[in-house]
Amino acid sequence: MKSIYLDNAATTKVDKEVVKAMLPYFNEKYGNASSLYDLGQESKKALENSRKKIADLLKVNKDEIVFTGSGTEANNLAIKGFALLKGKGHIITSKIEHPAVLEVCKYLEKKGFEVSYLDVDKDGFVKLDELKKLISKDTILVSIMCANNEIGTIQPIKEISRICRENNILFHSDMAQSFGKIPIDFSLVDLASFSGHKIYGPKGVGCLYVKKGIKLKPVIYGGGHEKSLRSGTENIPLIIGFAKAAELIFKDMNKESKRQAKLRDYLIEEILKIKGSRLNGSEKNRLPNNVNVSFDFVEGESLVFKLNFKGISVSTGSACSSKKLEASHVLLAIGLKPEIAHGSLRISLGKFNKKEDINYLLDNLKEILNELRRISPLK
Amino acid sequence: MKSIYLDNAATTKVDKEVVKAMLPYFNEKYGNASSLYDLGQESKKALENSRKKIADLLKVNKDEIVFTGSGTEANNLAIKGFALLKGKGHIITSKIEHPAVLEVCKYLEKKGFEVSYLDVDKDGFVKLDELKKLISKDTILVSIMCANNEIGTIQPIKEISRICRENNILFHSDMAQSFGKIPIDFSLVDLASFSGHKIYGPKGVGCLYVKKGIKLKPVIYGGGHEKSLRSGTENIPLIIGFAKAAELIFKDMNKESKRQAKLRDYLIEEILKIKGSRLNGSEKNRLPNNVNVSFDFVEGESLVFKLNFKGISVSTGSACSSKKLEASHVLLAIGLKPEIAHGSLRISLGKFNKKEDINYLLDNLKEILNELRRISPLK
Repeated sequence: MKSIYLDNAATTKVDKEVVKAMLPYFNEKYGNASSLYDLGQESKKALENSRKKIADLLKVNKDEIVFTGSGTEANNLAIKGFALLKGKGHIITSKIEHPAVLEVCKYLEKKGFEVSYLDVDKDGFVKLDELKKLISKDTILVSIMCANNEIGTIQPIKEISRICRENNILFHSDMAQSFGKIPIDFSLVDLASFSGHKIYGPKGVGCLYVKKGIKLKPVIYGGGHEKSLRSGTENIPLIIGFAKAAELIFKDMNKESKRQAKLRDYLIEEILKIKGSRLNGSEKNRLPNNVNVSFDFVEGESLVFKLNFKGISVSTGSACSSKKLEASHVLLAIGLKPEIAHGSLRISLGKFNKKEDINYLLDNLKEILNELRRISPLK
Repeated sequence: MKSIYLDNAATTKVDKEVVKAMLPYFNEKYGNASSLYDLGQESKKALENSRKKIADLLKVNKDEIVFTGSGTEANNLAIKGFALLKGKGHIITSKIEHPAVLEVCKYLEKKGFEVSYLDVDKDGFVKLDELKKLISKDTILVSIMCANNEIGTIQPIKEISRICRENNILFHSDMAQSFGKIPIDFSLVDLASFSGHKIYGPKGVGCLYVKKGIKLKPVIYGGGHEKSLRSGTENIPLIIGFAKAAELIFKDMNKESKRQAKLRDYLIEEILKIKGSRLNGSEKNRLPNNVNVSFDFVEGESLVFKLNFKGISVSTGSACSSKKLEASHVLLAIGLKPEIAHGSLRISLGKFNKKEDINYLLDNLKEILNELRRISPLK
């Protein structure tokens, strides 16, 4: 049977070159980067080379990169780390953030911080006017993702940054989904989170960009690794893999993003020909690999299962929430009714996808939709 | 040149079988364990099988194992997680804990918790009488490592457990160094931390045993993975690797620990023949792979560098602190004068070491000691 993976926003297949780069660090160059002898110092060098590689891609300073155990941890370090050091204040985020941001904010609310959750418009853009209005003298941090993981909407980072700068407020952005897919000017942000496994790198590694001068409280305490911001023996193989993956995705970014955007547009066009279908998220400012659509009278979950039966992997929302019964908080925030939100599908392309994958998906999707709608009690 | 690795307490070479077990999960079975389709569910199954495998080795319930990104993180989750949920109280730990415990305790002191740091005797055993005296009605947690990472002393876990049970106090133990090396009755503890890379598994993965019924506050917030105790996409390849490594080390534990203990005893015997040398840590209750010795009139760091020049990897103390100039807190706690502590060497054996490695080390060590002492300004 065919096996078509179209859930690259959930995780990606690790690139062969990335695996190849990591392999020697498991059982040849396995030294602890804190050890003084050659085997340790070799690891230390590999660690710092990886840091430099990523910093160069971001056009930031090597000392501004902190490696973490995941994108989620990077978000925790940024938001918890900054807020808890400040001790109190007001934080602004959006209603459509990833749980790795939203749950941290909820935790901080319990700790006495005030948090405002910005509304978004029907395309998923944060409301800039509202952002301006929400800012007070107590506001210490704005955390708004660069691109949404479910609907792919790319936020106006430049404008958000300008508003933050004008008000002297730190700007953090979760860039797990946009990293390596769209060009970003990292000078616009003060803190930015990245994840390895969204860019054909390994799971279990991420990093946080921390602009020089910004102080954070650690999330994990211990031996003082990563300038005491993240203790725990440095995970050299995975950091090597992450840096390699970043290098590869940046190298081909323009060409590959154009290619995927073309496939995406074709897929959207074909899906919108289906009766009772609609696109979620912005038509224009959208990740090159994201398609999010809703279909009347069907359950997204049924679609996922039926497509899986044909060897196609897609999701209803984000992987994190796909097991929950509630409708996606993102789709509700852009104004979808719960029953429509429940009939949604996220199809996220990747560099290994070809046009024939899209056609195979389309053929099966149409067939399954017909079948499901025929028996739907919802219509 | 020869390459003799004798710093297995810092980190270990990943076993070939472990690498082999992990490999398919990077780019074949790469699904997100939270995804509903087959590729995701396959990851979910692999995750739960790994959890079951580790739980079976520990003779605990599968639901009592929480995977983390490192042993350090497991210690943070145990101690911070329990203390912060309680909100206040008294914690007892020892003066010779790993920084992953000590730094968490220092953090908690700043948050208003009272922390007592137990003294140890000249062999590194915690003073049980002192423990009993320190316990008050406010004591919520005792955290004492199973075996020390620098001097290898194995604590009287049974007695500590009994004292905790009698007083209805939770007992956490950092077992990173003892896991898979000595038999442990896990029913004696309530929380226990483990690390992958100390047992020929990968860096960047660990786990925490959390006895049923114990509630913790998460360290990392997000998508609610690991029953909301540790958010972040599950790191399937590394978890697979960790479980495989645990399986392998448990399978051969008795035989291999005996073999290493014999090599250890031979090494200690030969070293103690050298004038002005002494053994640190207990002679009897000692990890089978640990040798920690002090030499008069030399700097441990010079020894490390000179031995490195001969292709031998050993350390002065733990890798975490080997770059610091202060004498080891463990060696000071067992009563060594700073100048003696500075002349110490930790030699930690592993399953890949043979007797010829030990002889090669001994030959070079004697030669280097003669050389260094000849020119020493300390004598």
